[in-house]
Amino acid sequence: MTRPDVIRIAQAIFTVSDLAASREFYVDLLGMNILHEEGNALYLRGVEDREWTLKLEQSRGPQDPVRVRQLGYRVRGERSLDALIALATEQKLPWRWEEELDRPRMLRLQDPFGIPLSFYHEVGTHPWMLQEFHRHRGPGLQRVDHVNVMVPDVKATMDWYLAELDFRLSEYTVDEQGAYWAAWIQRRGGVHDLALTNGPGPRLHHWAYWMPDVNSIIRTCDIMAGARQPERIERGPGRHGISNAFFLYIRDPDGHRIELYTSDYITVDPDFEPIRWMRDDPRRQTLWGAKTPLSWFEEASVMEAFDGGLQAHEAGALTGIPVHVI
Amino acid sequence: MTRPDVIRIAQAIFTVSDLAASREFYVDLLGMNILHEEGNALYLRGVEDREWTLKLEQSRGPQDPVRVRQLGYRVRGERSLDALIALATEQKLPWRWEEELDRPRMLRLQDPFGIPLSFYHEVGTHPWMLQEFHRHRGPGLQRVDHVNVMVPDVKATMDWYLAELDFRLSEYTVDEQGAYWAAWIQRRGGVHDLALTNGPGPRLHHWAYWMPDVNSIIRTCDIMAGARQPERIERGPGRHGISNAFFLYIRDPDGHRIELYTSDYITVDPDFEPIRWMRDDPRRQTLWGAKTPLSWFEEASVMEAFDGGLQAHEAGALTGIPVHVI
Amino acid sequence: MTRPDVIRIAQAIFTVSDLAASREFYVDLLGMNILHEEGNALYLRGVEDREWTLKLEQSRGPQDPVRVRQLGYRVRGERSLDALIALATEQKLPWRWEEELDRPRMLRLQDPFGIPLSFYHEVGTHPWMLQEFHRHRGPGLQRVDHVNVMVPDVKATMDWYLAELDFRLSEYTVDEQGAYWAAWIQRRGGVHDLALTNGPGPRLHHWAYWMPDVNSIIRTCDIMAGARQPERIERGPGRHGISNAFFLYIRDPDGHRIELYTSDYITVDPDFEPIRWMRDDPRRQTLWGAKTPLSWFEEASVMEAFDGGLQAHEAGALTGIPVHVI
Amino acid sequence: MTRPDVIRIAQAIFTVSDLAASREFYVDLLGMNILHEEGNALYLRGVEDREWTLKLEQSRGPQDPVRVRQLGYRVRGERSLDALIALATEQKLPWRWEEELDRPRMLRLQDPFGIPLSFYHEVGTHPWMLQEFHRHRGPGLQRVDHVNVMVPDVKATMDWYLAELDFRLSEYTVDEQGAYWAAWIQRRGGVHDLALTNGPGPRLHHWAYWMPDVNSIIRTCDIMAGARQPERIERGPGRHGISNAFFLYIRDPDGHRIELYTSDYITVDPDFEPIRWMRDDPRRQTLWGAKTPLSWFEEASVMEAFDGGLQAHEAGALTGIPVHVI
Repeated sequence: MTRPDVIRIAQAIFTVSDLAASREFYVDLLGMNILHEEGNALYLRGVEDREWTLKLEQSRGPQDPVRVRQLGYRVRGERSLDALIALATEQKLPWRWEEELDRPRMLRLQDPFGIPLSFYHEVGTHPWMLQEFHRHRGPGLQRVDHVNVMVPDVKATMDWYLAELDFRLSEYTVDEQGAYWAAWIQRRGGVHDLALTNGPGPRLHHWAYWMPDVNSIIRTCDIMAGARQPERIERGPGRHGISNAFFLYIRDPDGHRIELYTSDYITVDPDFEPIRWMRDDPRRQTLWGAKTPLSWFEEASVMEAFDGGLQAHEAGALTGIPVHVI
Repeated sequence: MTRPDVIRIAQAIFTVSDLAASREFYVDLLGMNILHEEGNALYLRGVEDREWTLKLEQSRGPQDPVRVRQLGYRVRGERSLDALIALATEQKLPWRWEEELDRPRMLRLQDPFGIPLSFYHEVGTHPWMLQEFHRHRGPGLQRVDHVNVMVPDVKATMDWYLAELDFRLSEYTVDEQGAYWAAWIQRRGGVHDLALTNGPGPRLHHWAYWMPDVNSIIRTCDIMAGARQPERIERGPGRHGISNAFFLYIRDPDGHRIELYTSDYITVDPDFEPIRWMRDDPRRQTLWGAKTPLSWFEEASVMEAFDGGLQAHEAGALTGIPVHVI
Repeated sequence: MTRPDVIRIAQAIFTVSDLAASREFYVDLLGMNILHEEGNALYLRGVEDREWTLKLEQSRGPQDPVRVRQLGYRVRGERSLDALIALATEQKLPWRWEEELDRPRMLRLQDPFGIPLSFYHEVGTHPWMLQEFHRHRGPGLQRVDHVNVMVPDVKATMDWYLAELDFRLSEYTVDEQGAYWAAWIQRRGGVHDLALTNGPGPRLHHWAYWMPDVNSIIRTCDIMAGARQPERIERGPGRHGISNAFFLYIRDPDGHRIELYTSDYITVDPDFEPIRWMRDDPRRQTLWGAKTPLSWFEEASVMEAFDGGLQAHEAGALTGIPVHVI
Repeated sequence: MTRPDVIRIAQAIFTVSDLAASREFYVDLLGMNILHEEGNALYLRGVEDREWTLKLEQSRGPQDPVRVRQLGYRVRGERSLDALIALATEQKLPWRWEEELDRPRMLRLQDPFGIPLSFYHEVGTHPWMLQEFHRHRGPGLQRVDHVNVMVPDVKATMDWYLAELDFRLSEYTVDEQGAYWAAWIQRRGGVHDLALTNGPGPRLHHWAYWMPDVNSIIRTCDIMAGARQPERIERGPGRHGISNAFFLYIRDPDGHRIELYTSDYITVDPDFEPIRWMRDDPRRQTLWGAKTPLSWFEEASVMEAFDGGLQAHEAGALTGIPVHVI
């Protein structure tokens, strides 16, 4: 039996309450590139992306709270999609076919923890902008890097992705009792395609883009300051102990959290030993010792349920937050 | 009558409680260069400095608290020294001649606010290390940039430096009542040689080096983290509204505060209009919105009195701190 | 008698053969900021400049070759202008009053070597864009830094600026016979406001802007490459031995040469000893050993004569070029 | 039948004529880290490497010309080694077991083109230095990235690696007749583990390390300049069209060529279409238009034959070099 072969995290779809305000944030300030603009939606990408990687949809109004509609992975071939359907059938996971611009066949599937996933093989690609440097704007977001999802049971969620989708563990956080507070798992050979962090969920903690360098991340801070929107900067810049990445977390006008991320490491060696961190080790969150704002631990974007409503949050088994908070 | 012609802030002398620990901080981690090492003192410099710019002296023990012994300015010629003596005589400011390695004639003078100053013209210079890149270590501190002194009466202190030493005002902070909370004044054509900030004093708030770029400042954070001394990082990295500089504040093992500073602007134009900031404008402290730790407002290094004891602190006329504190 | 007090190099006026093409180069690619646009001229500035620093004028056609109309210095007060007129009168240098946008009284004066200078005190300034980071475009040119003029007699020209305008010498190049091939002289406390290099002249070798960092210069190369105009890159990026600056030379559509320049050093100390380089020391041109294209030694922009025609070039007394040429 | 599963390029062994001189170059200037030092050999690594990645051996004297002894790949498990032996047996490729420090079982195998390969699964790893920032020296080489081998028949060599070792093609260069001049092939998901370029061979063109950023590459140039060894800099810094990488080529004291490399892109998508370049497209070599020195096309390190002598060079079927040469 073929197993699903997941290539990498590849796309997200958010709804937003004011598409013009989101456009200012993502396009005018962050310099993301519009690949398509259609009715009430923007399809965005980084300069290395050959396809759209973030779709923003105008929500229908106050009665339609903003949400993450889906998180999508590229897979290797139709047989991977078949294998995913077999898995869904066996585990009684809801699934259906959907289609999107440049994605004629997306397999929409809800994982056992309520995370709305999509998987696709066929995709319409477009010439990248990597070497169109004169068209880069703002800090020049480069490519989708990873997604971070807050879940009530990190260990169970991680185990499912390792067992069923052959993710590999890069780093993880445990407490004194050995309970898992967070896990970084990957398919692509970097530190993570998917991070799982403890908290009421499933909710999106953040969606991350790879940046060309430290300077482009510093420039992002300056741009937010220039636009008199420093409140968009939630945390950083700093250096994570986990992943070694230089990071910045910013919030879009609806509070969706975006990470700009650079300079982690590769994990392709078969004897790579997952790195274990203790929950209250201050080096874990940031090597430089800066504390983390409470919002970073508490706030996240709700997700869409399979029936189109909002996914209920389930509180986590673990409570409390690490000690090194502002 | 010739007026004193002050060129620039040029040197500081600190006492430290453990010279070996200070050496690890300044030399092994910050990569400052030892120009002389003599008995119980280190004479340090940045790679562009042609002379020592920071002298560290071993203090004599617990009964001899660490302090800033003096802050020194280079002046243009012996006539400037004469003019300073005339000023001291007229204003009844204590003064005497001192000598130091490479400084045969330093005029030690205490300003009306109790700040221990020295002025010198003759100086033994040494080939710089600016283009000896293979000998640069750590982040590569480049040259002394400025000093920041906490004083009880910013306005009176500023007025004296403007009136008697012909400093020029670059930026200043006032409250709603127009009271001065801080002032940045300069002789060298940059944003400041001397910053004055409100607080019990005179005490040294920080001593600052110019850095070649943003990356070298980020590297400083990483180095402190690598050495498992993140607690040395007190504030930043960030972008000041004032001066536009990219900054980092670190504390040496005795708590003396060092700023690493880059990318401000020039102020040579005669019609340069001093920039006015309101005390509670959050953009003033940092454009990115990060809050400032309380220690940054409260802690400072005591100074030496003219008789060699500790200078008494006088509380400030203004009380309170800006609202944007962690 | 008051002497002229020159503050700094401050402006240039070029004519160009196709203003639209120049606009693409300076505005769309280099990201210079349009302060005024009037009829057939663009007034440009860097993000720190409070006034226009480069004016581009549409030339009148093929019969009107492009040229440098003037190079302008800011001076301290009207008395400096009076002193300059006295100097011109004494030395029989042609002068007249001119006016320009934001410059009601510019003293146009031709130096004894045929360089068309202007001096001004009064100037209309505008809020800078330094902290308007969201409006910075392209590499973000920061402020005018210096000008480099090719002259037939470097020593005589240098001597005049040192003697009459109180410039100070930072660095210079001599050959084995002690003849001066180049000199870097300054008023502002940096390495140079004016460089003089040997060659038929007077002609403009280059007009230079200060850049915020190395990365912005690298980005300039990438932008030229993205726009499929690598031929605009004439030399660099590299590190000059002289000035220690990280540099890039680019050519505008008419061949006017622009330098992007960062990270030199300060020269304010009265005992600063000018740095002497031997003509054929390869470290002089670039520390990294890259050779210099012949065009860099040979090509330059002609200047306008006092009567409005083209200034004749006079060949230099010294012939030959350094050995380290591609 | 299991196929060999090659993880990534992982190690090289060079002989050098003067180990002390090589140590100065690799350790004192480049800041590579000594993992082991044994008799007449140094085992070096970058800060992210968990194992040695470059071994330097003292050659035995003038009668023993310096060479590349082997290029090594990590494989996934012993079964990969078995599969490689089966392949060698089938294709009559010479092979034997060797051992090295931390590599108890290296399969030494000569590919059909005379390239001395080694493959290993078992390896003694060591804690990395990635977050030991205070111990990073010089530019801070991060990890082995790729190897570039000059071969007489690029197409045949490439075909073998694609067919037998399942490498994937990222980019390639052809001439007007469709002949292959170069190919970039990979296993790890980046642009290349192995580049093949046309020329007499097999010879090593260069051995490459990943760098953390552009600034660390610029710092390398400055360090070579500071040490008065600019002749070590052969080419760059610049931006390759191929791979989009920011690069620098330097030569060690024996002429072995090292590339410092950063900021390429990922190639994990199954529909990634190899990028085709025409041989004389100047954007291929460098986007910025700088020409390439002839030495870069002509000089390379000889390789060791299976019997321990020098591998003979075979001239290539294609002659000539691209037009864009200095």
